[in-house]
Amino acid sequence: MFEYAQPLNRLIEELKKIPSIGAKTAQRIAFYLLSIPAEETDHLSEAIREVKKTLFYCTVCNNITNVDPCRYCTDSDRNDDSLCVVEEPYNIATIERTGAFHGRFHVLLGTLAPLKGMGPEDLKLEKLTARLGNGRVKEIIIATNPTAEGEATAHFIVKVLKDYDIKLTRLAMGLPVGSDIDFADQVTIKKALEGRTELKE
Amino acid sequence: MFEYAQPLNRLIEELKKIPSIGAKTAQRIAFYLLSIPAEETDHLSEAIREVKKTLFYCTVCNNITNVDPCRYCTDSDRNDDSLCVVEEPYNIATIERTGAFHGRFHVLLGTLAPLKGMGPEDLKLEKLTARLGNGRVKEIIIATNPTAEGEATAHFIVKVLKDYDIKLTRLAMGLPVGSDIDFADQVTIKKALEGRTELKE
Repeated sequence: MFEYAQPLNRLIEELKKIPSIGAKTAQRIAFYLLSIPAEETDHLSEAIREVKKTLFYCTVCNNITNVDPCRYCTDSDRNDDSLCVVEEPYNIATIERTGAFHGRFHVLLGTLAPLKGMGPEDLKLEKLTARLGNGRVKEIIIATNPTAEGEATAHFIVKVLKDYDIKLTRLAMGLPVGSDIDFADQVTIKKALEGRTELKE
Repeated sequence: MFEYAQPLNRLIEELKKIPSIGAKTAQRIAFYLLSIPAEETDHLSEAIREVKKTLFYCTVCNNITNVDPCRYCTDSDRNDDSLCVVEEPYNIATIERTGAFHGRFHVLLGTLAPLKGMGPEDLKLEKLTARLGNGRVKEIIIATNPTAEGEATAHFIVKVLKDYDIKLTRLAMGLPVGSDIDFADQVTIKKALEGRTELKE
């Protein structure tokens, strides 16, 4: 079995713990870090230390923030009528870049995923329901991922919120804009058919 | 333009400097590092510091090592007849895993890449030619990548070493084992045709 010098092996193992970094990528990153001046790796370590020290989860919406509540929760230019529920803090950026949503956010910090040990109680929906008491929220847009886990989570939220007088909506699923129908998978085409919209003159 | 809290932006920028980490991956890694205990990110920073402190390039072959010369250069079970020239230290692992090579290595630490500012003088082939003076090396296997840059580098090495009485060979190019000919690109099929081998009974 091929083995690198011990400190290099250890770094590769540490890097492999990061999701989306596999064995090959970890190896390339480790060799890259080796090849640059120590000063530059110090910048990286310092940047990691800094985010750990200064950032935390917003107590209202679970977004990552350096002020509490976060700027989305306090921004007076945003309306309180609609609440967009996303899985992770970085999903807020994805929605924001569209410029098409002007309400507030709520971050679940996960999805229902029994196989990963994430059950209904781990979703901590009390934090979401606590925001609905004042009656200001008229619509909740559930923007969890179009995956099995995201779908299950969306249905679970609908079940939990069924007694509230709030419109619950879900992001549309269908063909990606600019794509080719021949390359779409069957489930996507089925969703596109089910969600077909009427064309008017 | 969407912007994260400043320390998070800075970390994402630091991560994006690493080759093979794009904007999306940098973002995911940053949020992951935020979500784990500070103790675990300290392990990562410590592992980076440790490799920078204890590892360096072998003065003979440019491999990454913690002893100089490295263990490939001093291993008496390896033969001096053949020298395998690779682009990067991690390519040694790739060759070693095959178990099919028992000679020594030489790492170029790059390829000819004029667009990236890597010219012939940056390849530092003097370090390679310095190893050939004693006449022990009978064959040099050029194992640079099967890319335009790897090919150009291989041809450049052949030009530089033309006056040495040493056999120069190149890893074969052709269809990957277990693949489907229908999925191979034209250049690969052309190489497979050119390098066709005779079948004998």
